[in-house]
Amino acid sequence: MQEHQTIEKEHDYIPERKKWKRQLFRIIYRADTPLGKLFDICLLILIFISTFIVMLESIPSLDLRFHKFFIALEILISVVFTIEYALRIITIRNKKDYIFSFFGIIDLLAIIPFYLSLFFPFTKFFLIIRMLRMLRIFRILNLMDFMNDGYLIVRALKNSSRKIYIFLLFLIIFSVIVGSIMYMVEGHKEGFESIPQSIYWAVVTVTTVGYGDVSPSTPLGKFFSIILMLAGYSIIAVPTGIVTAEMRNKRQNLEKVCNRCGNDDIDDDANYCKICGEKVVNFKK
Amino acid sequence: MQEHQTIEKEHDYIPERKKWKRQLFRIIYRADTPLGKLFDICLLILIFISTFIVMLESIPSLDLRFHKFFIALEILISVVFTIEYALRIITIRNKKDYIFSFFGIIDLLAIIPFYLSLFFPFTKFFLIIRMLRMLRIFRILNLMDFMNDGYLIVRALKNSSRKIYIFLLFLIIFSVIVGSIMYMVEGHKEGFESIPQSIYWAVVTVTTVGYGDVSPSTPLGKFFSIILMLAGYSIIAVPTGIVTAEMRNKRQNLEKVCNRCGNDDIDDDANYCKICGEKVVNFKK
Amino acid sequence: MQEHQTIEKEHDYIPERKKWKRQLFRIIYRADTPLGKLFDICLLILIFISTFIVMLESIPSLDLRFHKFFIALEILISVVFTIEYALRIITIRNKKDYIFSFFGIIDLLAIIPFYLSLFFPFTKFFLIIRMLRMLRIFRILNLMDFMNDGYLIVRALKNSSRKIYIFLLFLIIFSVIVGSIMYMVEGHKEGFESIPQSIYWAVVTVTTVGYGDVSPSTPLGKFFSIILMLAGYSIIAVPTGIVTAEMRNKRQNLEKVCNRCGNDDIDDDANYCKICGEKVVNFKK
Amino acid sequence: MQEHQTIEKEHDYIPERKKWKRQLFRIIYRADTPLGKLFDICLLILIFISTFIVMLESIPSLDLRFHKFFIALEILISVVFTIEYALRIITIRNKKDYIFSFFGIIDLLAIIPFYLSLFFPFTKFFLIIRMLRMLRIFRILNLMDFMNDGYLIVRALKNSSRKIYIFLLFLIIFSVIVGSIMYMVEGHKEGFESIPQSIYWAVVTVTTVGYGDVSPSTPLGKFFSIILMLAGYSIIAVPTGIVTAEMRNKRQNLEKVCNRCGNDDIDDDANYCKICGEKVVNFKK
Repeated sequence: MQEHQTIEKEHDYIPERKKWKRQLFRIIYRADTPLGKLFDICLLILIFISTFIVMLESIPSLDLRFHKFFIALEILISVVFTIEYALRIITIRNKKDYIFSFFGIIDLLAIIPFYLSLFFPFTKFFLIIRMLRMLRIFRILNLMDFMNDGYLIVRALKNSSRKIYIFLLFLIIFSVIVGSIMYMVEGHKEGFESIPQSIYWAVVTVTTVGYGDVSPSTPLGKFFSIILMLAGYSIIAVPTGIVTAEMRNKRQNLEKVCNRCGNDDIDDDANYCKICGEKVVNFKK
Repeated sequence: MQEHQTIEKEHDYIPERKKWKRQLFRIIYRADTPLGKLFDICLLILIFISTFIVMLESIPSLDLRFHKFFIALEILISVVFTIEYALRIITIRNKKDYIFSFFGIIDLLAIIPFYLSLFFPFTKFFLIIRMLRMLRIFRILNLMDFMNDGYLIVRALKNSSRKIYIFLLFLIIFSVIVGSIMYMVEGHKEGFESIPQSIYWAVVTVTTVGYGDVSPSTPLGKFFSIILMLAGYSIIAVPTGIVTAEMRNKRQNLEKVCNRCGNDDIDDDANYCKICGEKVVNFKK
Repeated sequence: MQEHQTIEKEHDYIPERKKWKRQLFRIIYRADTPLGKLFDICLLILIFISTFIVMLESIPSLDLRFHKFFIALEILISVVFTIEYALRIITIRNKKDYIFSFFGIIDLLAIIPFYLSLFFPFTKFFLIIRMLRMLRIFRILNLMDFMNDGYLIVRALKNSSRKIYIFLLFLIIFSVIVGSIMYMVEGHKEGFESIPQSIYWAVVTVTTVGYGDVSPSTPLGKFFSIILMLAGYSIIAVPTGIVTAEMRNKRQNLEKVCNRCGNDDIDDDANYCKICGEKVVNFKK
Repeated sequence: MQEHQTIEKEHDYIPERKKWKRQLFRIIYRADTPLGKLFDICLLILIFISTFIVMLESIPSLDLRFHKFFIALEILISVVFTIEYALRIITIRNKKDYIFSFFGIIDLLAIIPFYLSLFFPFTKFFLIIRMLRMLRIFRILNLMDFMNDGYLIVRALKNSSRKIYIFLLFLIIFSVIVGSIMYMVEGHKEGFESIPQSIYWAVVTVTTVGYGDVSPSTPLGKFFSIILMLAGYSIIAVPTGIVTAEMRNKRQNLEKVCNRCGNDDIDDDANYCKICGEKVVNFKK
């Protein structure tokens, strides 16, 4: 709850004076009215259709047959998104804050490729930008109170990010050194022609992905692979351990502290401190 | 214990008046008599045989040689299952509740394909329905008190399902965006001919499955793969962390019960019931 | 400590009367004397050599050149193992208990293939029995107090085995049903010729192994694969959650209970109960 | 904090008498001055450049075109590293301790390959030694207080190393036995020509890497693979469980400290110090 309010707060603390603006604002930026919910659901559907068009366009056989249909739909959706973007700017008072907010930029990126492609022919390059429209899904889910659990995950990841970065650094240096060794061991065999190639193989192996496009052919190479695989299989425990510990932690950190005995392991539904029996009336965060 | 009674409760609270019906009911729906256990074991064996026949039938070389034998066995098993289904309906009083219950539908699906295939030739289509017979195993295991631990797992998954859905949504959007980038990077190389293809590759990679039927061939593509693999290797920690935290949580719920208010969510280290403040002196397990 | 004594207890509670037997017994069955330790280390080396011979013998090019040398070494090791087995029987009083104990049978299996191969030519069949010699390593590690941590792992696995079995049953039934669906979807494409083949593919996919010898070729097949992979990636959390929860549990269950407040979370190095401050003098297990 | 001081302590407890030496020492061995930080950042950049050169050199097409440029850069970097090594020895008082410390040896190894390659032509062999330069990154990160979280990981791994070794031993023996069985099952099929080959396959499978360069072709072989894969998928939980349990444990160690006896292993829910019985009223973080 608290979270998504912080995100929106920036552009809603000064409500518009004109009534229709306030009403539109509520429909567009809120999901607490039937119309607001309908608006969000329509937007969600449009985002999915838009994403599917980009996908289907990329399939040559479908693009040949439905090219015009896809273009027409894309134009329609882009126009709707443009109107929506305009309405978002009009109905909000603190326009700057919205335009330069994360979702403001995403909203702009959702329409820009269309207008640019009118003047420049390389639509393929705009493709990935059009895909970023998918990120708008999160705003809608956010409004619909769907994201609280998501925030817990993100926060746990954020809090353990430092540990995960260092783990990744270990992993990368480990892969680089192992890849270099394999480059020497497997000589100039196929797939180990250069050190970057060997590092690619090492990462493929240590993460247990194992494409098989590159695999060792000499006995010594296979022996090193076995060590690498066992290492990868064991150290997968490290990120898991980090996030699990953090996740359990989060559950506690978010909760309350007993005023009498200082016990900080108080569940959400507790009336009394389980350690000293003190009534949990007011708690510090 | 509690769980599987709820499942059965719907159709056994009004016992049949006729004695033979009551006795048959107990054999068929219960496992607390030697005959009831024998019945369940026979059923279990029949389900396994039936499943194996479907499997073996699908192997062309075996089907050529034993086709008639398979058909004969399938007829036999279908007849037995039909008799069983009839008996289940006859012996139960609340017939509607049984017929439209989850296992009632499964029981019907277990025999329908056979009768349909008498009139329609496309048996292959019914194959998957015949495979659903396997789900009947869970009812029998349920009766045999085998499923208590299973319920714990299911409950832990259910309680963390919201977090897991959001995690999967993140993962899918991540895969779609990464797949689109790879479509642009690897151009029209083999395996990256379209965005859906590239997304397929992205999911294969991020889940560390790594078939290798599609793998990057350009240096830039390999570089992106490395990032994707490291990401996949790190974020595997997230579902694990979610379920582990939930599982630990669940465990506590089953341990002690407060003598005063009946609260069953008492931690191992609690001195006082967190709901009513009662001292936790002696607790029932 | 406690653990491995229980294992040995069966055959050492009645010490031999003759002094040389008692001394030999101590060397062979114990590791608390320098000679006893030396004996164990020699045995460990012999087991490793014996295992390596079996491995190297299986490599055609090496077997051609060193065949006689391998045979000679195998004879030597078998003779040493036979003498050791004889001594084990002679020095122990409760011979029956030893012979029919787990390690007694392993010890016998370690020498039998050699004598059988004198009369029967198919040595290849005995190969796997010869490999079972490796299991003797665990007895030696056990004697050397190396296995305490191993017991913790085994016990955690044993305690959660019921949950893991049910999880595996879920997984197998899931794979069977998904495999059957894929058999229908991918028609008679390569690698999906029969249901068992498709099940093989489903297991390869859901466990994130992903050989790539079988991979979907139709768009619908790929779509199902994506769902299966995401499912496999998410449910890997379940066994992890089970074992992790059990492992944390084990740590506590093995420990002590406070006599005053009943707190059962007392660390090994605690002098005082962390909940009520009671001195931890005598504790119940 | 505490950790990295212990590492450095060996060579800084006797400061140099000459002022310029003390100043240089602080720049080189510390990161608490702007110049010291600049020095570290320059070093970090040089290490990355040096590593990239080794990588790029190994790509034939790039090496052909930029060979001279690479050599020139390598000479430049080696000279800078040599000067740095000389300054490190000059500015430190306890020279022996530095030279034979872990990072002292790494620093020497960072420059030796260059001078050796002047006299011996096989530069390829020195390649891996040149790659070890990357390990110097850890010293710099260490100085920059980046490694505290890393130490937590390393310590958790160290504390659970015994359990992990035993787990790996289990895994290796399991793979050897399964590999031997597959050697017998798959006869002399491709990829299973010898036991070491089969063991390679078993490890590839059980760790869920699954290259696919070796995969079973007989039905029985596939059946065994399925069992092996399910086993691998389940036992991945073991290292994760070990490290997670250890990590949670470690976390507690860093939190509170008893005011009376200095015990730093106080759980979140403790009322009394478990070592001395002191009430835990106020604790330092």
